[in-house]
Amino acid sequence: MNSLTDAVPRTVRELNRLNRLNRNTSGMCRGYVQANVIMLPNTDAFDFLRFCVQNAAACPVLEVTAPGQWEPVLTAPGSDLRTDVGRYEVHRDGVRTEVRTDVCDVVDDHMCSFLLGCSYTFEHVLVEARIPMRHQEQRIDGAPMFRTNRSCVPAGRFHGELVVTMRPIPHNRISETVRLTAAHPEAHGAPVSVGCPEALGIMDLNRPDWGSPVALSPGDVPVFWACGVTATNILRNAQLAYAITHSSGFMFITDVEVTP
Amino acid sequence: MNSLTDAVPRTVRELNRLNRLNRNTSGMCRGYVQANVIMLPNTDAFDFLRFCVQNAAACPVLEVTAPGQWEPVLTAPGSDLRTDVGRYEVHRDGVRTEVRTDVCDVVDDHMCSFLLGCSYTFEHVLVEARIPMRHQEQRIDGAPMFRTNRSCVPAGRFHGELVVTMRPIPHNRISETVRLTAAHPEAHGAPVSVGCPEALGIMDLNRPDWGSPVALSPGDVPVFWACGVTATNILRNAQLAYAITHSSGFMFITDVEVTP
Repeated sequence: MNSLTDAVPRTVRELNRLNRLNRNTSGMCRGYVQANVIMLPNTDAFDFLRFCVQNAAACPVLEVTAPGQWEPVLTAPGSDLRTDVGRYEVHRDGVRTEVRTDVCDVVDDHMCSFLLGCSYTFEHVLVEARIPMRHQEQRIDGAPMFRTNRSCVPAGRFHGELVVTMRPIPHNRISETVRLTAAHPEAHGAPVSVGCPEALGIMDLNRPDWGSPVALSPGDVPVFWACGVTATNILRNAQLAYAITHSSGFMFITDVEVTP
Repeated sequence: MNSLTDAVPRTVRELNRLNRLNRNTSGMCRGYVQANVIMLPNTDAFDFLRFCVQNAAACPVLEVTAPGQWEPVLTAPGSDLRTDVGRYEVHRDGVRTEVRTDVCDVVDDHMCSFLLGCSYTFEHVLVEARIPMRHQEQRIDGAPMFRTNRSCVPAGRFHGELVVTMRPIPHNRISETVRLTAAHPEAHGAPVSVGCPEALGIMDLNRPDWGSPVALSPGDVPVFWACGVTATNILRNAQLAYAITHSSGFMFITDVEVTP
């Protein structure tokens, strides 16, 4: 899809550090785990981690750093979470106030960083199995995302609805799709719902809440996975005085290899 | 094995609440998830939860309560973590100072409770599959536990070695044992090591660090699973000013059913 498909993660992280790459990471570094990044004051960190653990399909925890520690030593040693993402957003009182290419000047030593799994990770596994990814065929950056009517389990001030991604899957490949993605709990795991958008409160597949609509081919069924945007959405609901996240689609790429 | 094998969890919790049952819960409430209980001041809670998440095989998180909340609403609604365990231990500065049948008078509203998975949960699954549990055959309460030479991933002041349980398994049932327990990540999941105790630094299977030795039958191989005692052991290392745990083997029994 692009020249960075076969890049190693360190290359992409270094390009981001030099601000020479300002792109959605969908399809980059094939075979490596990608991550949502969330930075919070340590006073909110315990409740947020409780939220993640208790809503693990939407918020699979890859790594959590201690306050003021910007290197995720387990999943990307040598990296720096303040610089190695292509685009960041700064939120104050629940409102996005700034978009930046690094956050060195706006973090403080009381902030903890969370790396949460991302479905970009498993798309590669599906593509390898020759299961069609319609949004890629249609040259759309990332699967469309929808707010659902399903509540997450709240923790402290963190609460809100589950957000899902939708991928059209041929009806006779759904069993294989379930089996393959179930093996990747670190990337949202198996679908949460198959074939019945209304039951999730999704009334029009052509009007996603985030991203662009993707057309179904004849014989396709809409399949829904829990999505990391759930986390950024509940952050907004919590109206934290201060938080930093990656920009949707501009993920942090870890050195962790996707197990087949 | 005993008259409470087929009891529902609420019955056992109520007997514990009335202090009418002071027993190891191995084999009780067949088909329900059992849990380690750990109560900590909220100042230590974030680092401890980070430790659990990053050492998930040893410390699979079932539920975490907010400070001062004693009812685990997700896994055992209506229960009370201060009374519904058969035996508790109170630790001060890393030393066990008291053993109690309830902790109502010694908790405070700044403490959070952690429920972590327990291998009692999957023993039932193995028994159903007619895989022999030698410790049960030998009338020993619980599998023997060993300290290993493998370090956990540290988080803040929490650090220490992985502790494992050992169960002798017939050589020709190991594949099935792996498959069945891998399906239960909430109960430590698949074995961490099979057949080579020396590689874990375990020099004598007849001298466990906790529990009683269990004899291997001809054709048996020692199989090792990550163990929840890892958590109580690292608590001791951390020398917390104050912590409360269940007593080893006296687990909290949740209403969560074990999926086959």
